[in-house]
Amino acid sequence: MLRPPHLVARYSTIAPTIRDIFHKSAPINSDITCCGHIKSIRNFKKLTFLDVSDGSSAQSLNVIMENSGENKPENAHLVGQSVEVKGQWVESRGTQANEVRVVRGNPNHSVTVLGTVPENYPIQKKNSTLQFLRGLPTLRHRTSTLASIVRFRSGIELSLAKFFEENRCVKVSPPILTSSDCEGAGKVFIVESANKSNGKFFEKPAFLTVSAQLHLEVLASSLNRVWCLSPCFRAEDSHTNRHLCEFWMLEAELSYVTEIAQLTDFVENMIRSVIVEARGSSSNGGLLQDLLQSRYSEEDRQKVTSRWDSLASIEKWPSVTYNETIKIINEHKNKASEPLLWGDDISTEHEKWLAGTHFKSPVFVTDYPKAQKPFYMPNSNPAIFDSERPNVACFDLIIPEIGELVGGSLRECNLDNLVVEMKSRGMNPDTMEWYLSTRENGSTPHGGFGLGFERLIAYLSGIDNIKDVSAFPRAPGICPC
Amino acid sequence: MLRPPHLVARYSTIAPTIRDIFHKSAPINSDITCCGHIKSIRNFKKLTFLDVSDGSSAQSLNVIMENSGENKPENAHLVGQSVEVKGQWVESRGTQANEVRVVRGNPNHSVTVLGTVPENYPIQKKNSTLQFLRGLPTLRHRTSTLASIVRFRSGIELSLAKFFEENRCVKVSPPILTSSDCEGAGKVFIVESANKSNGKFFEKPAFLTVSAQLHLEVLASSLNRVWCLSPCFRAEDSHTNRHLCEFWMLEAELSYVTEIAQLTDFVENMIRSVIVEARGSSSNGGLLQDLLQSRYSEEDRQKVTSRWDSLASIEKWPSVTYNETIKIINEHKNKASEPLLWGDDISTEHEKWLAGTHFKSPVFVTDYPKAQKPFYMPNSNPAIFDSERPNVACFDLIIPEIGELVGGSLRECNLDNLVVEMKSRGMNPDTMEWYLSTRENGSTPHGGFGLGFERLIAYLSGIDNIKDVSAFPRAPGICPC
Repeated sequence: MLRPPHLVARYSTIAPTIRDIFHKSAPINSDITCCGHIKSIRNFKKLTFLDVSDGSSAQSLNVIMENSGENKPENAHLVGQSVEVKGQWVESRGTQANEVRVVRGNPNHSVTVLGTVPENYPIQKKNSTLQFLRGLPTLRHRTSTLASIVRFRSGIELSLAKFFEENRCVKVSPPILTSSDCEGAGKVFIVESANKSNGKFFEKPAFLTVSAQLHLEVLASSLNRVWCLSPCFRAEDSHTNRHLCEFWMLEAELSYVTEIAQLTDFVENMIRSVIVEARGSSSNGGLLQDLLQSRYSEEDRQKVTSRWDSLASIEKWPSVTYNETIKIINEHKNKASEPLLWGDDISTEHEKWLAGTHFKSPVFVTDYPKAQKPFYMPNSNPAIFDSERPNVACFDLIIPEIGELVGGSLRECNLDNLVVEMKSRGMNPDTMEWYLSTRENGSTPHGGFGLGFERLIAYLSGIDNIKDVSAFPRAPGICPC
Repeated sequence: MLRPPHLVARYSTIAPTIRDIFHKSAPINSDITCCGHIKSIRNFKKLTFLDVSDGSSAQSLNVIMENSGENKPENAHLVGQSVEVKGQWVESRGTQANEVRVVRGNPNHSVTVLGTVPENYPIQKKNSTLQFLRGLPTLRHRTSTLASIVRFRSGIELSLAKFFEENRCVKVSPPILTSSDCEGAGKVFIVESANKSNGKFFEKPAFLTVSAQLHLEVLASSLNRVWCLSPCFRAEDSHTNRHLCEFWMLEAELSYVTEIAQLTDFVENMIRSVIVEARGSSSNGGLLQDLLQSRYSEEDRQKVTSRWDSLASIEKWPSVTYNETIKIINEHKNKASEPLLWGDDISTEHEKWLAGTHFKSPVFVTDYPKAQKPFYMPNSNPAIFDSERPNVACFDLIIPEIGELVGGSLRECNLDNLVVEMKSRGMNPDTMEWYLSTRENGSTPHGGFGLGFERLIAYLSGIDNIKDVSAFPRAPGICPC
């Protein structure tokens, strides 16, 4: 007997979530218990209507309390109070199929205030701006919109985990603390024991990781395909709506990959899989539906819907090389201004134009100039490689309205090429001996990519500021708790 | 059309994993391609036998190369080389159902070395000790045992994610960087921008989190039930086989929980669910089976099997209070020595005896003395509370051979009680204003727990040293890459 029956019985003594109350509907006219916070109150002479929400679902529960002639019940009279409601699960005459009726005089029925609120409780029914809510880090997730973002993020993460499992990618936990500082000291955080008597705790300087890639490459060389969703850190003094100092990055490394198209197809498949699952109503409770139900304005809902439609409807996301992209921009966008030259950066403005206006689709841009990219990318395939203007085998996924969402590449698997490239960039290969050793011990062709998880969530949920999809966002000067 | 057919076709150009080759068996006598590292080589006059493994499965592929009279093939002659094999998928005369035959003279058949190894390649067929392998951080996951641990950990994580989804717990990402240092400065890491010209990057000192609990409580107060699996950090100078400076902690907070038994039942259910799923062979590829297949010694396999049997077979895990536990230890274990007094710590040795010898089962110990526990735990329920010897509403899950695996409690939800308790411990409530504010704004009864994820994986996989279940373990003086 693997799962004793007592567990089901005892564990179910926790009050059900409101999501469960709607999904696993109790028999009509039976008594139920539910808990949550009061979202709104309407008082009438004989009845008081409460909206009760617990953040488990976009739906709130309509509770009808029978009054005894007075206008207000003694309890449960302030928005924000947490309550336990015992009442009858009845058919509704309102917009929802069911509601809870608290019958005055029924000894089994009650509305009990579990925790009250001050008169100036700041989360009211009226639609506060997301900017205002950022000043309320401990209360802002009481709003429908921000609660729905957290649920959405949770659902998307599970959906991605299933995609990777189906594709035989092993989830790994690369280190957060690392002694490799390959992206330059100006943008990393350094870590020390607060107890200085420990001296150098790790005997050498330790940093917070900026990317798990190098460690993932090591693990992919043993496990074939690996992925992770891990916190990464950048000590950048950026105050934009798309940067965080602490963010979660989804990274994957796949062995035996030899062409960029294998990676871009994998990425397209991954994002499409997530979208297909989130649109479905059964398998994961309808993530998209839950998201849309939590928005107040039709304009917001429209923005989300059109993004999802554009991701899903196009037969295949186009893929163009950097060289082709320069040409396209010069021919169609830059006619009046100075043309871009080979080697120039493609600006975020140009990226948004390329995806949003020109292709009207997510687009892969591949084979960027070597000088724009890190040391570990191999030359582009011989059919397009030009030693005068060397490009490397990499890609960015560019999304309308946002710009870069995913970046990836093949990884140079030849030791000598790697060492030459590092030296030409003034890097000391000795400090990366551990990484380079994989190229001497049964090196395999491989490639991978990284995706800023908050950016994906912000894009899919139609949120402009990445700080609103992070539960406790960290940015310069912002670490209040 | 949501998922264009080109994706299936193009994406599948990545060589299949060996796990896929076994699971989605190709038609007999068809040609297949597979990639991996050579695990062993046996040369005979006419045939060479290779074992090829890619870390995707406990199974390695048997490859039979036909030689042309010489003993050795020109290529593929060293253990550790990575190879691409093109050959025929045939029925086997050996222990496996199928094998790959590389027919000499067939122009479509070949064994190509993708990356060679030095003569002293350290991962050989012979069973290296885990301690020896710890000195090879970039190669140790080439071994069957350690690769299987990573796959196992990945599978258990997915299984847990499904359990929490079914139980309406929202996965959240609490912050890693925090300005709350509630566990004392001696054991935390402090974080600064490596670029000192930034000054205090966050305007106040920032630390690496030691536990997500306080932030989870905040989120649970909005989302009802939340959980996370996040890195935590302790700057402890511990060199034991059960401590890491960087580890992943599974934490959950559930609202509207009022009894310890609701939490202990939840935890028991969670662990049993994972065990049931991992034993199954279909839903997730047989995690336990994969684990056992990767062990060399019958003794190792026996150890794992007996642990799993003991977890699953007992009808209900017992639950005893701290006061009862002291009595049990004094009556049955401590007869000859000094008796334990109320208020004494229960040592790890006593914990192991309690679970392993006395109950022969995992056991919950509840209601520890207040002085042994943090400030946020409420008094035990009135039926057992004694103001002379105050206990608090908490529990530890004690596991045979290991000791504590999970710790949890109800959380004090009354503001005044919390403030009194903090002051009595010399804590300054002003520094925790953000946390305390949840008790003023619709406070809810709630409780939760934390589980050291590496400890769970180590226990379930029968591994003694926690450093062997962490891909890149971090400990004092150990941060090599």
